[in-house]
Amino acid sequence: MGERESATVEAESRGGSGKPTRRRRLSVVQRRDEIVSATLRLLSITPASQLSIDDIAEAAGASRALVYHYFRTKERLYVAAVRSACDDLRARLVLPDVHPFEKMQYATRVYLDFAEQRRDDFAALLRGPGRPGGQPDELSSIVEETRTFIVDLVITSLGITRPTEVVRASLRGWLAMAEVVSLEWLERQALTRDQVRRLIANQLGAVLAVAAMEDEELSAVFARHVATADIDRLPPWVRSLVRPAG
Amino acid sequence: MGERESATVEAESRGGSGKPTRRRRLSVVQRRDEIVSATLRLLSITPASQLSIDDIAEAAGASRALVYHYFRTKERLYVAAVRSACDDLRARLVLPDVHPFEKMQYATRVYLDFAEQRRDDFAALLRGPGRPGGQPDELSSIVEETRTFIVDLVITSLGITRPTEVVRASLRGWLAMAEVVSLEWLERQALTRDQVRRLIANQLGAVLAVAAMEDEELSAVFARHVATADIDRLPPWVRSLVRPAG
Repeated sequence: MGERESATVEAESRGGSGKPTRRRRLSVVQRRDEIVSATLRLLSITPASQLSIDDIAEAAGASRALVYHYFRTKERLYVAAVRSACDDLRARLVLPDVHPFEKMQYATRVYLDFAEQRRDDFAALLRGPGRPGGQPDELSSIVEETRTFIVDLVITSLGITRPTEVVRASLRGWLAMAEVVSLEWLERQALTRDQVRRLIANQLGAVLAVAAMEDEELSAVFARHVATADIDRLPPWVRSLVRPAG
Repeated sequence: MGERESATVEAESRGGSGKPTRRRRLSVVQRRDEIVSATLRLLSITPASQLSIDDIAEAAGASRALVYHYFRTKERLYVAAVRSACDDLRARLVLPDVHPFEKMQYATRVYLDFAEQRRDDFAALLRGPGRPGGQPDELSSIVEETRTFIVDLVITSLGITRPTEVVRASLRGWLAMAEVVSLEWLERQALTRDQVRRLIANQLGAVLAVAAMEDEELSAVFARHVATADIDRLPPWVRSLVRPAG
């Protein structure tokens, strides 16, 4: 859709609106982002079925016509909102070509940057459609796919070619832990960002080490990465986690 | 309420019911348990606000009058259902007076027994009112209190007297991991019970070891327990997790 088109809709809706609304000069992209953000925020406190376009328009300070213009249906707006936040996280998670352990450190920083910079969206995703164990629907599927993307990213970054159920369950468990600790950090600020970063990254190492006790390939892969890691950067306890050969 | 009283209500409701229902001879306790179970089941798939006593009565194969007789209001029924499952878990988690690491092994087995024996209730608690990040209300508070109970149980069992935020966040994260792995086990059966038990118990050890890197007291406590543990029972890698003194 073009910028001119949406500007027209906005002008029309401004004329037709009976009640005073906060109108600011925003670009099409900003306006769309605000609607998407307001949708995520509302989805975190209200089930999708109980929301109306009017609620969303009001929360975004936009006209109902504009919301319809951009998204056509409520369902498409929901999907766009959840997908846009998840796509942003995935786009950030392009990892540099460094040692696997450094990749994991990098990914942890990127994850926390996303949580910090998009604090409301991050909390909304995890408390709303993406709440673990929520009803499976299109919205929770998008968040769940993002979790699978992160688990797969760890698996491929480490060079695991045949991930077992133990590896997958362990990584899924670690991600649940990372989510809880990150939300706790954002909401209570009782831990510093650095503490949260170290906890998440070190817990990944520890969880992998525990899983390696049940998994031959992971054990070998982990031992190889420990052997090639930059010693100064590696927490000393990681080395001792590797199961002795044989 | 007495058995006679409720039997009267049931007899009346049987006479007054227009549609055929499955009536079986059940004790008062069994009947009440069935209503509570049906409520948990429904709460896992429908928001509390959208459920009716009729839905619950139908799902439990009980009369509407009987449900009202036992619980008076919908809200009290919800609270009774969630509380009864959580109280059962807490009652099971009375730990024997053994070495702290064995206490944790025992607690893990008890947790999985609960998950296995009350499979539907366990899933319902975590997917319904107790979903992490769900809206705070009386129901989610009960599940959240149970999580705090478990975290406190680990803290006191280990003899930690001044639990820091790092310790609390780590244990809360570990519990999120245990929940995800247990749900996954119950629903997909891709892991064996023994694998899940080892993962949860070993991940607790690993998570504590990581937290100990940030926490003086935990580090000392952990080292003391490792020194006094029965060597045969202790996974060999645990010993190496302890930060060297000084």
